[in-house]
Amino acid sequence: MSSEKCFAKGSAVPGPIPKEHIRLYSMRFCPFAQRTRLVLNAKGITYDTINIHLKDKPEWFLEKNPLGLVPTLETAAGEVIYESPITCEYLDEVYPEKKLLPSSPFGKAQQKMMLENFSKVTPYFHKIPTGRKNGDDISGLEAELKEKFAKLNEDLVNKKTKFFGGDSITMIDYMMWPFFERLEIFELRHYLDNTPELKKWAERMSEDPAVRATMHSVDTYKAFYKTYIDGKPNYDYGL
Amino acid sequence: MSSEKCFAKGSAVPGPIPKEHIRLYSMRFCPFAQRTRLVLNAKGITYDTINIHLKDKPEWFLEKNPLGLVPTLETAAGEVIYESPITCEYLDEVYPEKKLLPSSPFGKAQQKMMLENFSKVTPYFHKIPTGRKNGDDISGLEAELKEKFAKLNEDLVNKKTKFFGGDSITMIDYMMWPFFERLEIFELRHYLDNTPELKKWAERMSEDPAVRATMHSVDTYKAFYKTYIDGKPNYDYGL
Repeated sequence: MSSEKCFAKGSAVPGPIPKEHIRLYSMRFCPFAQRTRLVLNAKGITYDTINIHLKDKPEWFLEKNPLGLVPTLETAAGEVIYESPITCEYLDEVYPEKKLLPSSPFGKAQQKMMLENFSKVTPYFHKIPTGRKNGDDISGLEAELKEKFAKLNEDLVNKKTKFFGGDSITMIDYMMWPFFERLEIFELRHYLDNTPELKKWAERMSEDPAVRATMHSVDTYKAFYKTYIDGKPNYDYGL
Repeated sequence: MSSEKCFAKGSAVPGPIPKEHIRLYSMRFCPFAQRTRLVLNAKGITYDTINIHLKDKPEWFLEKNPLGLVPTLETAAGEVIYESPITCEYLDEVYPEKKLLPSSPFGKAQQKMMLENFSKVTPYFHKIPTGRKNGDDISGLEAELKEKFAKLNEDLVNKKTKFFGGDSITMIDYMMWPFFERLEIFELRHYLDNTPELKKWAERMSEDPAVRATMHSVDTYKAFYKTYIDGKPNYDYGL
């Protein structure tokens, strides 16, 4: 389903979206697009994937979404939806099977507040590897990220639940997961040694079928990120 | 309702929230808190307001919301909700009178995408006045903001609607309005001269009852912002 080579500038427009399908414009290694892939898989939604060459985007893709972002969803009716949390909420509303967001307004608000807090964590996954590559002193960034991990750990301790929204996986877990899947590639996995509840959460997540369906091996990630850091990302690595 | 002086560090805890009420922790001149005030007013919700001294926050407020942000909502059941879009969506879900968000998943997604795009506009309302105060060259920032206004204008032209979500006010209009209310204080009002549809939108908005109920006079804003820029904000100005 996501094994197709990426579409670049000059490529032919992909065929129409079959009825009852939804289409995902993605990039195989993008953590934000993985959020949407997790939700699509967890809910058992029938979808097809068009991978986009993010450094050389097809003209027809920029016509659909002038911002050129992945993930972008497109329905058979031509509706276009982008920004990972917006795509995921849309899917959860349209496809009632296996609801990932709570039905109560306060429950939903809690999930959104957790996501807003987590949005202050994600930039470190870019800043730390980049700083390292440039030979900057990243000790300050590392200390900040460690503190944020400690807060997440504390949150699980206080809640006494297996996941962030209760004892089963909910939307917030899928929103957070892609960054934890990449800890090893960014040489940050040892951070979890000081946050045992967060570590257990990550172990539980790694066993989830949707997580397993969307993940890459550490070797594949490492190889892709090498091409990425070198400025020539090979979006088709491993195909 | 919002005429009360602000609560600072050391202040007594305010009384309990009456049943059937909701409480808003606010700051009278905060554009983000005004979003929530607009929704509360537009929907005719019974609420009380506790204004917070943002430079010297009460301990009891930080216990409720360790981030210390306004707007924060608190229900009689003790539920705490923060971040302006989250508070507004919560209110729209809990209080069905005068729905501000569309009921269709795609309609909701469109509102969220517009808000996400607008979130790239709001920082200019801080950067331009601050740059001016510091004597920086702000011509680049000004050009960028003008381009963003042009895009918003184009959006209305393409839609051929009076407001951003149709011919009546919806959530997105209230999310955007507080920044347009402050154009004159930031000496940016003339930007609208090149964006006639956006200017008409702003004129229509200024006649809305909820807007009128939550706005301050230009003189009041100017006096408050003077104290703010001088580093000693007088949150009780005009009371």
